[in-house]
Amino acid sequence: MSAHFESTVALLEHTPACLNALLRDLPEIWTRRNEGGSTWTVFDVIGHLIHGEHTDWIPRARWILEFGESSPFPPFDREGHARLTRNKSLAELLDAFADARSQSLRDLRAMNLQAADFERRGRHPVLGTVTLCQLLATWPAHDLNHLHQISRIMAHQYRSAVGPWDAFLGVMHCDGHSAPG
Amino acid sequence: MSAHFESTVALLEHTPACLNALLRDLPEIWTRRNEGGSTWTVFDVIGHLIHGEHTDWIPRARWILEFGESSPFPPFDREGHARLTRNKSLAELLDAFADARSQSLRDLRAMNLQAADFERRGRHPVLGTVTLCQLLATWPAHDLNHLHQISRIMAHQYRSAVGPWDAFLGVMHCDGHSAPG
Repeated sequence: MSAHFESTVALLEHTPACLNALLRDLPEIWTRRNEGGSTWTVFDVIGHLIHGEHTDWIPRARWILEFGESSPFPPFDREGHARLTRNKSLAELLDAFADARSQSLRDLRAMNLQAADFERRGRHPVLGTVTLCQLLATWPAHDLNHLHQISRIMAHQYRSAVGPWDAFLGVMHCDGHSAPG
Repeated sequence: MSAHFESTVALLEHTPACLNALLRDLPEIWTRRNEGGSTWTVFDVIGHLIHGEHTDWIPRARWILEFGESSPFPPFDREGHARLTRNKSLAELLDAFADARSQSLRDLRAMNLQAADFERRGRHPVLGTVTLCQLLATWPAHDLNHLHQISRIMAHQYRSAVGPWDAFLGVMHCDGHSAPG
């Protein structure tokens, strides 16, 4: 068993309730505004998380077990959430994320992974060789990456309201450090 | 009434449940490790949030109403949480934060602020002149600053486990952008 498997599952179980408690019924200033230009709103981020449950984590784990390094993962469509979010409310997206995550965790348990499975290798279309163990660790880290992003998008809405305190709030000076994803 | 007052209160009400849902009963790899050196753990951050409820937000709002710019705020002790967290469990801190925040929000409502009050000025010991409106906007922004920090501290624990995916996870490359606070 991977050393991180239990802590991975624990965090994956907690994320939907965390986002639900933070976001459900909040005024739209917090959830429907972005950081300018074509950046994402919090609403978009929840759509992206749902899309990941459908097409990224469990599908890629299965891909590794089935194809190994012989065939790269199908690329993940970073804009693939657009059709998932159309005409939906944030409450509906939060419910859909909780449902999709529960299904993913049922699927993960049903895979009944053994110690040797965690070292199985696959091929990422950009990153090259990766292990199942690394894929599974990236799943909760990706949740945290987007919690980091969500807190930044939300804080951005108060950038001028905080006045001189801006200088003490590191979140106001974060640019995300990478292509969002 | 400040344009932001309702959205401020809404977020302040949500933060304790968000942190509770994220953190309660998580394995200690997520909550009791720091980012190296003398940086804070998630446990420390929750202590800091409690300390802020006791000594920062409502006390400073009252200070502005009582003293205006005539006397600066007493400085906030950034290490003041140490005595609050000693011999406590994370679950106890999460409960204490929820209780302290509820009390703060009761106190805020009891102040029965009027439109003109939001423009009242106070004096920050470092930042100089600030308004009550800016102080109140900084309160939820400070919650978000620490949610941003918490997601970063947690992600840091998986930095090597994610392998090459590190390159795609901006949270792994965030240094906080300022003195923590």
